[in-house]
Amino acid sequence: MAVALTILPRPRSADEARVLSVPEATTILRAAHAAGVDITATCGGRGRCTSCRVKFVSGTVPPPTIMDEVQLGDDLVRDGYRLACQCHVTEPITVEPAPPLDETSFQILGPGEHADGLGRIAIASGVVKQVVKVNLPREEHHQTSDLEQLLAELGLTTDAVTPPVLAALPSALRDDPAGVTVTTFGGRILAVERGDTSAMKFGLAIDVGTTSVVSTLLELESGERLASISSLNPQSVFGGDLMSRIAFAQFNPGNLRKLRTRIVGVLNRHVGELCRESGVLAKWIYKAVIVGNTCMHHLLLGIDPSYVGLAPYAPVMRHPLVLPARDVPLTIAPDAVVCFLPLVAGFVGADAVGVALATRIHESEAIRIAVDIGTNGEVLLGSAAHLWACSAPAGPALEGAQIRHGMRGAAGAIDRVTVDDDVHVHTIAGAPAQGICGSGLIDLIAGLLDARVIDPTGLIQVEKRDALSPALRRRVEMRGEERIVVVVRDGEGGATREIVLTQQDVRQIQLAKGAIASGIALLQRVAGAPDDRIAELMLAGGFGNYVSIASAVRIGLIPPLPLDRIRYVGNAASLGAQACLLSEAERQRADTIARRIEHVSLAAHPDFEQVFVDAMNFPEPEHAR
Amino acid sequence: MAVALTILPRPRSADEARVLSVPEATTILRAAHAAGVDITATCGGRGRCTSCRVKFVSGTVPPPTIMDEVQLGDDLVRDGYRLACQCHVTEPITVEPAPPLDETSFQILGPGEHADGLGRIAIASGVVKQVVKVNLPREEHHQTSDLEQLLAELGLTTDAVTPPVLAALPSALRDDPAGVTVTTFGGRILAVERGDTSAMKFGLAIDVGTTSVVSTLLELESGERLASISSLNPQSVFGGDLMSRIAFAQFNPGNLRKLRTRIVGVLNRHVGELCRESGVLAKWIYKAVIVGNTCMHHLLLGIDPSYVGLAPYAPVMRHPLVLPARDVPLTIAPDAVVCFLPLVAGFVGADAVGVALATRIHESEAIRIAVDIGTNGEVLLGSAAHLWACSAPAGPALEGAQIRHGMRGAAGAIDRVTVDDDVHVHTIAGAPAQGICGSGLIDLIAGLLDARVIDPTGLIQVEKRDALSPALRRRVEMRGEERIVVVVRDGEGGATREIVLTQQDVRQIQLAKGAIASGIALLQRVAGAPDDRIAELMLAGGFGNYVSIASAVRIGLIPPLPLDRIRYVGNAASLGAQACLLSEAERQRADTIARRIEHVSLAAHPDFEQVFVDAMNFPEPEHAR
Repeated sequence: MAVALTILPRPRSADEARVLSVPEATTILRAAHAAGVDITATCGGRGRCTSCRVKFVSGTVPPPTIMDEVQLGDDLVRDGYRLACQCHVTEPITVEPAPPLDETSFQILGPGEHADGLGRIAIASGVVKQVVKVNLPREEHHQTSDLEQLLAELGLTTDAVTPPVLAALPSALRDDPAGVTVTTFGGRILAVERGDTSAMKFGLAIDVGTTSVVSTLLELESGERLASISSLNPQSVFGGDLMSRIAFAQFNPGNLRKLRTRIVGVLNRHVGELCRESGVLAKWIYKAVIVGNTCMHHLLLGIDPSYVGLAPYAPVMRHPLVLPARDVPLTIAPDAVVCFLPLVAGFVGADAVGVALATRIHESEAIRIAVDIGTNGEVLLGSAAHLWACSAPAGPALEGAQIRHGMRGAAGAIDRVTVDDDVHVHTIAGAPAQGICGSGLIDLIAGLLDARVIDPTGLIQVEKRDALSPALRRRVEMRGEERIVVVVRDGEGGATREIVLTQQDVRQIQLAKGAIASGIALLQRVAGAPDDRIAELMLAGGFGNYVSIASAVRIGLIPPLPLDRIRYVGNAASLGAQACLLSEAERQRADTIARRIEHVSLAAHPDFEQVFVDAMNFPEPEHAR
Repeated sequence: MAVALTILPRPRSADEARVLSVPEATTILRAAHAAGVDITATCGGRGRCTSCRVKFVSGTVPPPTIMDEVQLGDDLVRDGYRLACQCHVTEPITVEPAPPLDETSFQILGPGEHADGLGRIAIASGVVKQVVKVNLPREEHHQTSDLEQLLAELGLTTDAVTPPVLAALPSALRDDPAGVTVTTFGGRILAVERGDTSAMKFGLAIDVGTTSVVSTLLELESGERLASISSLNPQSVFGGDLMSRIAFAQFNPGNLRKLRTRIVGVLNRHVGELCRESGVLAKWIYKAVIVGNTCMHHLLLGIDPSYVGLAPYAPVMRHPLVLPARDVPLTIAPDAVVCFLPLVAGFVGADAVGVALATRIHESEAIRIAVDIGTNGEVLLGSAAHLWACSAPAGPALEGAQIRHGMRGAAGAIDRVTVDDDVHVHTIAGAPAQGICGSGLIDLIAGLLDARVIDPTGLIQVEKRDALSPALRRRVEMRGEERIVVVVRDGEGGATREIVLTQQDVRQIQLAKGAIASGIALLQRVAGAPDDRIAELMLAGGFGNYVSIASAVRIGLIPPLPLDRIRYVGNAASLGAQACLLSEAERQRADTIARRIEHVSLAAHPDFEQVFVDAMNFPEPEHAR
């Protein structure tokens, strides 16, 4: 049975509305394409991108599919958006395709007076693909070469090529009557492929953290995110934090090589998995942008970071590097441009530059703070007038590492905790509890502080447990020499082991949050910007997405600003990398920002000792209100 | 007992003569250095270079040592030159050190009206070493990096560096109070070494032939040749001539890789041996210049030469490439510049450009010819007005390959033959005869032609042997179906086997010499330059050094010019590479020359068939006189 499908013109387009009569249960995308209505489907209609999304204007909005939820997110789903490739027409409906805007601009976090201010940047990745037909002479007396014939078509010089490109020429130029597709970047040829492959143009944004590595595959023309993957930095076995990893590499070329191999290895595993998941061939990835901390950049480049770990903590280089992928080596197009964003100082890296870029903190009228929470955290504070940064070496505790029953945010991790008369936990995916991840730890400690199970110095109140509710009382005990709080008992909610918080765990969290809080406090002091002058505080980093802001304030991880001036901004460093991937103007801007950021050395500041000791303690209950 | 040693001032120097009283049997060099007289000894007085040579002005010139002969050659030895490091003072003598000229200029073959015209070029390799002291800040608040501090001293930008150079920075900048030595080329940093290594600056000239590979190590400041090595091109097992090697690689990436691995492997073996012999460290080699035929350049770069072997024989590229050594890879300084000279056409390569450069044929008033005899021979003909080139695919027969008892020019090879009433042979190093090398084959055939053992069509005259002398008669016979000439009998002169020349061998030589002779004849025809307009014919190629010119004329390998207009020029291609190694002006000139050379395709010329058939035959006896 045929059903009426009305497709409205895109906003700001000159098209007219089309009313189609389509067989029942056809997808909107297939029906539109069959009728010659142009709805973009970057991933080919496989639910792997968001380009075909439509907004329901009339008719019943169907329940979202998994693909709708994954690609569009809660907000768009709630607003009535669905993926046209996933949505079957079963009754008369009217839909409006997404504006074509997305195909030439890309959403960043942006500046703004409001907590949810968003910005857009124009897409111009610098990667250009063009199809050319090359006439090869058939007669011997022509003194020429394959390359010269190709360059004549392109208007480029011999400086534009490398041997791997030359190696591709002879067969590419002869194998396909359609011609060859030449990919260039800044006048240099990155690849020559037989036939017309001009639609295939992808890029990789990579955020290399001390503990986590996140890679995102984007389509370079539309800016669509096709796939993203996050894994543990495999260097972690050689040391959880930067200093221990530097110590491992220090003056030891063999260990330096091991660290480099690990990180290059995980990036290439990411390339393989992203390509498998998205159907993109690795050779179609022509640009990558890497943001990482200073030490990670050194290790990726095979440069000894020994002196990054010794006062005065000087990096070997700070400028933005651009290398061919084969020199990293990344297993994408061999001559793909791999761009390392610039560094600021030994412990303020390209990731901080990425955060600044994505949040537009450098353009802000008012003073804002961006806190990138991670093993090697960074704090940015400033405005268009002045921008300061410092490192906040939190260690991996907030990511669940070096905690007795800590774990990363995976199924079975306790990610939310409330404490009233007892301790109540929520686990990721509702699975039986296996451990506590960072956001759960912060909730837990915040709750235990309010319930006075922990005092402001961090001590678990075993001696005073009689003042607690009966249920809480049973959770607090000395076990041998050790003070503990039992969070989940063996068997509780299907848990297969007891999960406890130890006194040592509390100390680790105190050290971690103390590092970040004292970083924020000192930058505020340097800038002369007390809490009431801070227009906004942004929590960045993969971890920042999950933490309860109220709990973070309660334990003193961040200053007690009104909650509407605090927002999550997700992985802003990666978003900055994505912006530079899609826009050469943004990549140039990164360099300007890096030069503008003034590095503040915490340890060298005369007030540091006092600030740090203060920051180690938890706020008194009064402060938290 | 003390002996008087008088050292005259160098020509054109302001020094005064010095009379030294030296212990008997001291070397001149050691005595001079002990007295503070400055005689250059680039190799450190080990007889490995020519820089300490002195000319005897009075006193008995001692017999030359082996080192004198090897380094100085016959002409200088005859003129009374000796190496000061090898020559012991045993009676009162007066010597004059070599002019310091050699330290800033380099001898090439040069243009000239005379057969022994020599030219000199000014040395300016482009490789610059400078010692700098870098002040690293000690305080944390400096926002800088190792690289920025170094570049500030050098006045260079961050574009000047690559990751391998960055990797060397941190320890080099801190390990030696003397500072660091920075090597640059065209404003790019090739290496940073701890301490002062400014005296260590070497380069490599490489001639990659189809059959032979010759590498020469030079000191870049003085131009001294420190060591040279020649070996068989190990690709030969996959085909003796270019066409068979192209067929092996054609559309077969595995075989292409094999060919590349072989040639890169032999170059790196050369690096190892040259360094061992000269005491130079491979990391002190900062520049290499490669000349080879078009196919060899493609194979070295990993580029499929399939279409070089198919009409219209188009190369993939012809422009001069400059790559970092690690991309070849050559195991010299990783960022050393490896310069491939430009190519002219599919079968006229950089080696021809090298020959032109060394012989200055492109500057000549009169018309000259340069013949590079090799498996893939090349002929150049022209003057300052016009320059033509063609390939002469002789095959490896003239290098002793594909000949029944052929061998390369090593100990035991018959290298000279005279034929009167019998056949008389001379072997290299006087060793028992083991085979015949190229020069011996040409002598042998020339002699057999004059003795009418072979007729002008190349047929061995078994039927007419009764007209020969009794001794010759016994050497000519049918063996089975095969006509042969016995050159050496088993046991003769210690030979452990019989050495024969077969009819098939004669045919191979006819094909080889026919290819070269028809190349010369056709270029003469194209240029309208009969023999009497040819001012000079130069025989180049390793082989060209040993062949008897009279025999070469007798068999028609080269046209019958007056013998004083024919000269050996040795390995002119390698000499051209050496010139470009020592002089960037020469390397630029190579590009100009390559553009000027007009390639003549033999097979496409209407007269080719006739010319080639004529050239296959041997000249009639009358012609040879």
